[in-house]
Order: sequence, then structure tokens, then C-alpha cells
Amino acid sequence: MNGAQSLIKTLANCGVDMCFANPGTSEMHFVAALDSVPEMRAVLCLFEGVVTGAADGYGRVAGKPAATLLHLGPGLANGLANLHNARRANTPIVNIVGDHATYHLQYDALLTSDIVGFARPVSAWICESKSAQTVAGDAARAVQAARSAPGGVATLILPADTAWNEAERPAQMLRDIGPAPVSSQAVDDIARLLGNGKKTTFLLRGSALHGAGLEAAGRVQAKTGARLLCDTFAPHSEVGAGRVPVERIPYFAEQIVDFLKGIEQIVLVGAKPPVSFFAYPGKPSWCAPQDCQFSHLAHPHEDAAGALAALADALNAPAQSSIRVPLQLGGLPKGPLNAMSAGQIIAELTPDDAIFAEEAATSGMPLLVTLSTARPHTHLPLTGGSIGQGLPLAVGAALAAPERKVICPHGDGGAAYTMQALWSMAREELDITVVIYANRSYAILNIELQRVGATGAGAKALSMLDLHNPEMNWVKIAEGLGVEASRATTCEEFASQYAAAMQQKGPRLIEVMI
Amino acid sequence: MNGAQSLIKTLANCGVDMCFANPGTSEMHFVAALDSVPEMRAVLCLFEGVVTGAADGYGRVAGKPAATLLHLGPGLANGLANLHNARRANTPIVNIVGDHATYHLQYDALLTSDIVGFARPVSAWICESKSAQTVAGDAARAVQAARSAPGGVATLILPADTAWNEAERPAQMLRDIGPAPVSSQAVDDIARLLGNGKKTTFLLRGSALHGAGLEAAGRVQAKTGARLLCDTFAPHSEVGAGRVPVERIPYFAEQIVDFLKGIEQIVLVGAKPPVSFFAYPGKPSWCAPQDCQFSHLAHPHEDAAGALAALADALNAPAQSSIRVPLQLGGLPKGPLNAMSAGQIIAELTPDDAIFAEEAATSGMPLLVTLSTARPHTHLPLTGGSIGQGLPLAVGAALAAPERKVICPHGDGGAAYTMQALWSMAREELDITVVIYANRSYAILNIELQRVGATGAGAKALSMLDLHNPEMNWVKIAEGLGVEASRATTCEEFASQYAAAMQQKGPRLIEVMI
Repeated sequence: MNGAQSLIKTLANCGVDMCFANPGTSEMHFVAALDSVPEMRAVLCLFEGVVTGAADGYGRVAGKPAATLLHLGPGLANGLANLHNARRANTPIVNIVGDHATYHLQYDALLTSDIVGFARPVSAWICESKSAQTVAGDAARAVQAARSAPGGVATLILPADTAWNEAERPAQMLRDIGPAPVSSQAVDDIARLLGNGKKTTFLLRGSALHGAGLEAAGRVQAKTGARLLCDTFAPHSEVGAGRVPVERIPYFAEQIVDFLKGIEQIVLVGAKPPVSFFAYPGKPSWCAPQDCQFSHLAHPHEDAAGALAALADALNAPAQSSIRVPLQLGGLPKGPLNAMSAGQIIAELTPDDAIFAEEAATSGMPLLVTLSTARPHTHLPLTGGSIGQGLPLAVGAALAAPERKVICPHGDGGAAYTMQALWSMAREELDITVVIYANRSYAILNIELQRVGATGAGAKALSMLDLHNPEMNWVKIAEGLGVEASRATTCEEFASQYAAAMQQKGPRLIEVMI
Repeated sequence: MNGAQSLIKTLANCGVDMCFANPGTSEMHFVAALDSVPEMRAVLCLFEGVVTGAADGYGRVAGKPAATLLHLGPGLANGLANLHNARRANTPIVNIVGDHATYHLQYDALLTSDIVGFARPVSAWICESKSAQTVAGDAARAVQAARSAPGGVATLILPADTAWNEAERPAQMLRDIGPAPVSSQAVDDIARLLGNGKKTTFLLRGSALHGAGLEAAGRVQAKTGARLLCDTFAPHSEVGAGRVPVERIPYFAEQIVDFLKGIEQIVLVGAKPPVSFFAYPGKPSWCAPQDCQFSHLAHPHEDAAGALAALADALNAPAQSSIRVPLQLGGLPKGPLNAMSAGQIIAELTPDDAIFAEEAATSGMPLLVTLSTARPHTHLPLTGGSIGQGLPLAVGAALAAPERKVICPHGDGGAAYTMQALWSMAREELDITVVIYANRSYAILNIELQRVGATGAGAKALSMLDLHNPEMNWVKIAEGLGVEASRATTCEEFASQYAAAMQQKGPRLIEVMI
């Protein structure tokens, strides 16, 4: 077996059986090796930002890493923005980057670049394999590193000769470095803290926002009456009717300050203290009240779900909370489409257990309000803030959970960055409904231009925020990339098209004119 | 004036009056400042790879830098692949990246990243401004650094508070660090070398391939009979009828070896020794004959055009060469379209003085043969090898030379990476004719899979190179992004559509079914 075959087999041995790929010449042996390992699925993407965003979506939903396959430094570079997002979401990804053969690097051929340099800002772990015989071991360590709590991007750089030279054998999976348990002492300390009479909230992240972790948080809530909060862009949360209610921190600095007013202590469960997304002249970066006390029930690398369960036990909380989000749907609106009415329609018509890969930006604010009491669903937002993630994220989520409907509500400005993801949706026949909010604007920037106090903006400045000239036609773009598409200009049209999309399997795009 | 205004005015003072932009919240003050400097033109792009590729095209044609405006680390990351290409082309670019306000960085908000780390692999110069009062000076130094021979990417990182805080005054242009003159001693040494009876060729790059430099090379050719060569992907060359003939080195390693066989000495004029683009098992990386001697008439940072003129004088060469490329057009082919017949049609119908922003990949090989004796034109290829550059490059070239027709022959696989460039072509009404070679394949990889000796490739591997499922429809994609488009399935259809495109002003896309 050659190094490439040892790689693919090792990945499969370690439970990595999904590879998002945009390979080139230096990765041809890895491509050729795909057929030797039947359990490895390879998904071709037309652009590397789709590769890495899909790996993020897959990792968040599957709870285990996918692999990427990228072509040299520039191929990695094209995937960096969504790796930044994945880093912020603590998504496990085995990020495989081909390189020139070891002996070819000295010639500085045109595609040579500093791959480690490109990888460093987004990677929790980096390794360059030096020979075909170490590839299997390096790959096993890469999977272990990606899976290490709280999860991260493990970049494995593979020179072409490590693929084509002879290897010995594939490696087996290494011991998993799961989240560290929180000591009973630390749990007891928090339990005591809750008796100090201060107005307390819990800020949840990671495993505290879904499954057993969220249920355990609900027990604490039921016993103590403490509010449960999550970050604006918490990477993976379970939301909607029947779920434990968690309040989402708003986006803008002054809203956060208002929202947190009066809170005396915040218990962090896998989260960090809330800060402003951007700085604004005269507005605070630190958004908690000045005298608010912070303590950690669980740091990000620790077992948040286990710590919450232990805390609930220590508090003698009930075995299950009866505080649940009620199902509240507002009915189908009529008449003009806007972000609010579109959000109501989505909330009304989306079936149980959907996954939202959401990058609706300004249109997302009313959408998230309506979704908060809609049918139970999973919410995956743009955690790292680098726009152009939603469509790829939907690709990965749909491949991780093929039996679930994936909804991708997306601003038109952001969707333009990685529109190539539509092609992979068609190619893999993924059950995704994309909703493009077509406001023909970087709408958030029109708000931010005012908020940062930038004066003197004239026609030239405002044109930098405006997408009217020319108007993108998302129906044609989608059809050009192989995805069935339609346009809705009224609530009635959108409701009818969206309802039809919910009944069908496969990719579909609806351009909502707001 | 604030820091942002001092920046824009300084850039204009330094001759930088074109800015390709994809800004975000942290750059809003820079956007607002655009209107205060009428001479600065701002071109909005939907994706940062378009921003940086356009800056490359502009710099190559204008011979001076454009500015970029990018949003934080991830915005820069999206532009890195085309900055890699620009680095390899030695294109001057003032690469401006916004950052969080200096005091906000400590909070590690979600969009915070290691911007210097992202920038280092592509930048000849990096500076982070520390206050609004240094922005003007830093910007003047950035322009100087970008323009320093042989030209490069100067990255200027500007925290948001350096934009909104008060500045003193704009800066004036610093002394240009032009190419270093080559000493008469060095010229004489080469002149003597040419008398040693060895079979000699000149390998030209940079200013040696256009204008006065190419004419001077022609004088040397006329006097000595030496062959003139250029790299496969020489960044900027003047080609076609009436021009001094220069032979382009072929792409594949074994072709290069054949091509260079028997050459005893190579005089480098701004170029490096020819090496293989990729490594292949059992094939050489170093492609010149083992005993071939190399010497430098001009290093990349030196004045290649001046050195060639001095050498021609030292050799008593004629004032002008009479060796010229003849005009040879093959007429319009009929019947089935393929890369060869499409290339013949382009060669036949393109008017004088067009600019080719060319990324035709496998289809480019016959095209370049037919173009070599077509009407005189400028050739801008994919110098750095990171595909997805041609469409943005055409945007920049058209803005640098609005009176010239720009042709963008592009492989369909590569065009998918930065298709968003079409929108900027429509928005700015650029006179560009895009020809998409639709072979529904990463065709080069089907060749390379064989050449690297990768065996065992089955259906899964081959599907990674195949773009049939689904078929991209470039007419719809272009129309969706605002560009008039048509499809040609025969030579007659293509000739008719291409001839019409040559008669009109403005963007136009033709999808050639090959």
C-alpha cells in the first residue's frame, strides 16, 4: 500500500468517513486511493470555502470530524475564512492539505507557498508529514487532535511523495481525548454560590445547549429559577417547542448591555464573558455590568453537560424540568413580504426536527424570534462572523443528517460569497431548502455606518453597501448551478412555494423579494 | 480630518486612485471617507478573491498599484489565493485590511484573528498602524513598498480606531524605489559570454517582455541569433504580429526538457531557471540540461529593459530588429467546436491591441498557438497557478485600460471559483468578452492523474474530476449576475456570437460547448 491508501484507511479506522474535496495535481494519489476504502465518502465542491464550510456543518451535526482535501497553500487559503468560523465554533475537522513533493519544494515552483503560515491562525494542531511511512500515524494523531475537547481544526500537510511512496500499514484510532470532567468540589462551589442571594444567570455553550446537557440545564433552571442564556452565535443549539427555554443574547453592544442589566453573577458553562461583536466609538466592548461576578462551572475544554447534571443533582433538582417552550405559531401572514412575514411563514410551515443553517443577517433577527416558539429544531448560526458560511454549512449538515430537513435562510450579500455550494447540493441531491432574503443590500452595513458614527458618506460610500446595480437573480444563479428555484414576491407566493419545498426531498431555492 | 480621510487622500497623493473593495463594519469610516477624495474610484466586489484578482489585473496593466479594502482577517483570507498569484506576478498592490479597534482586540471577539499571520505568506511588506496619526505615513510607505522593484503586495492593517480618530494631515508620495540599474561591467560580462560559442538563449521576464524592453531584446536577437524564451506563465507579455518573437516554454516537465535540449547557456533577464510546475514520480523537477550554464543579465529587482538596451548597444546591434512575428490567421473553421477550433475563431476575430486575461487551462494550449501569430495583443496568464484568477484579472485589466478590448478565455472549472467577478463586470460596464470553455471537467486533472502514475482510480476517484453532475449552465449564471450571455455549440454559432461581441462595448459571456 502507498501512503495515500494508508491515509484513507487510517481515517476510516478512526471513524472519519466523509471527505469534502477540491483536489489538484499534488493530491491525485489521494484521490486514486478513495476507491480502495469503500466506507469513505467523497464529496466534490467547486470552491474550497464550500469544502471547509461543509466540514464545519458536518462536524457540528455529526459530532465527529469530516476530512477536507485541499490543493496546496492557495487551496487552503480559499478555505480559511470558513475554517476561521469552524475554529470559533470548536468544530472538529481533519484538514488535509497537499503539498509539493518534499524534494520539489527547493525549486520554489509557482504554486509553492508557506502552507504552515496559512494554516497557523485557524489550526489547533498542525503537522507536516515527512515520509509515506509516517502518514498513517500522523493521520491518527490528526483525528485525535481534531476530536480533543472542545474540538478544533487539525491541519495535516501531505507532500505528494508521502502519497505515492510505499507505506507499511494503516493506523488504528488513538484514545479519544474527551472533555475533562469537572470535579465535585468545583460543582459544589457553584452550588454554594447559588445560595448567596445574588441575581444569577447561566451562560451556556457547547454540549450545554443540546441533548442531555440542555436537559440538565433545565433541571437547574427549574430548581433555582436562574435564567439560562446563550451567545448570539452559539454554534449548535436545540430550540423550539418542548425544549428547555434559553434566552439568546442580542447582537448589538447597547442591546447586550440592556439585556444583562441588573445581573449580579454569571456562571459560565463552556462560554466566555459576553463582549461586543465590533467596537463602536463611545460604546462599550465589555457588555456585562461592571460589578457582575463571573465564575466557571465548566471551561470550554471541560464536560459542560456532565457538570450541569452533577450540579442539578447537588441541588436536588427534579429529574426533569417542567419548564418548556410552548408551541406558538402566528399563522400565515398575507400580503407584502418582508423579513418579519417571511420569518412567520418559515416558522409556521417547517416540520419537526429540521436543522437551520442560518445566515440571514438583518433578516435573521425577526426570524429567530418567530423560530424560538416554533416546532423543535436545531440552530446552526454563523459563529465566527465571516459571511459566506450558510450555504456550505447546509451541505455538511444535510450529509450528517440525511433524514432531516435542512433549511438555509440566507442574506443575499452573504450568499454571494459561496454560491458554488448550490452545485454540491444538486450533485449530492441534498434535502435542503435555501431561502434567499433578497434585499439587494449589505443591509447590516447601512445600520453599522450610522452606528459607528461615520459622517460624510456620499453617493460613492453608499454605493459600496448597495447591491442593486445589477440585481442578482438568484433563480437563474441556482438553476445555473443545477438547483430548482423560484421567486416569491408576496406572502401567498412564498407560503405556497415553501410548503411545496417542505413536501419534497432534494435541494430547492426560493428567492424572497423583501 | 480623521485617519480614514488621511488614508484616502494620501493614497491619491501617491498615485493610487483605484480601490477594489469588499468592506465590513470595521471599515465603515474608510468607506465614508471615499467621497471626500473625488479622484479615488471605488469598485465593489461581491467576494474578496475578486478584489485581489482585480487588483492584480489592474497593477499588471497600469504598471502601478491599486488599493484593496478588505474586512478583517477572514476577508483577507478570502483574497489570499489571488494575492498568491499577484506575488508570483510581482504585481504592485496596496493591500488594506481593516481590524478591530486597538482596544477591542483584547476581548477576542468572534471575528478577531491573526491578520499578520494570514498576510505574511503573500506580503512583501506588512505594517499595522498604531494610531490615526500614523496612518498617512504608513500608507505612503505602503505605496512605496508595493512599487519597489520588482513589485509586490504591501499589506497595511488598519484598526478601526485609526480610521475614526483625528489625524493631522495626508502624506505626500515618497521617493520611488525603482529597479536597480545593471552595471556596465555586468553588461559587458554578458556581452563577452555571447562570444564563447555556446548555444545561448535568453529567458525573459518582467519589463523584458513588453514595450522598450521587448524591443531591446529583439535587437540582441537580431545581432546574435540567440533564441528568446519566456516562462509558461510570464505575467505580462506582448505577443502577436509585428512583435519581437519570443518562444513560450511549455507546461509539462518532459516537454520543457525536450524544449531546452541542446541549450548550453541561458542568460536570465529578470527570470529564474525553468523548473517543473509540479513534481512527478520519475520525472525531473529541474528541467534545463544538466550542464547548462546560467548567468544573470538582470535579477528580478534590476532594470531588465535598461540592461537589454545596454547589451544591444554593447553588441553594436541594429537600432531596431527586423525579425518580427508575421500575421498568420487560419481563417474561420466550420463544424464541430473544440478547443482548437474555438482558439482559431478567437485568433481570427479579435481586434488589434486586445488584452487577454487568460485562464483557459487545457484549452489554452491550442489557443496560445493560434494567438502567437494573431493580431498584436497583451497576454496576462495565471502566473501563480491558483485557479480562479482569470475573471477578476479581466475586471482589473479593463479598468486599467478602458479603451482596450479585454478577452477572458476561461476553463469552466476554474471560472467557478470566482464567478462573482461577472457582477462587477456588469456593475462597471466593463468591455470584457468572457469565453467559457465548457468541457464539464477538471480536464487537466484527468491528464495529471495518468502522469503522476496514480493507479487504482475507480468510479469514486474519477467522479472527483468530473463536472457533469450537474452541468453548470454558464448562460444562466452570467445572466443571474447581470451579464448578457449566450451559448455556442458549433463553430458557426461561436464565430457569429464572438464577432458580435467584438463589435459591442460592455460585458458579454459566451459558453463554448467543447
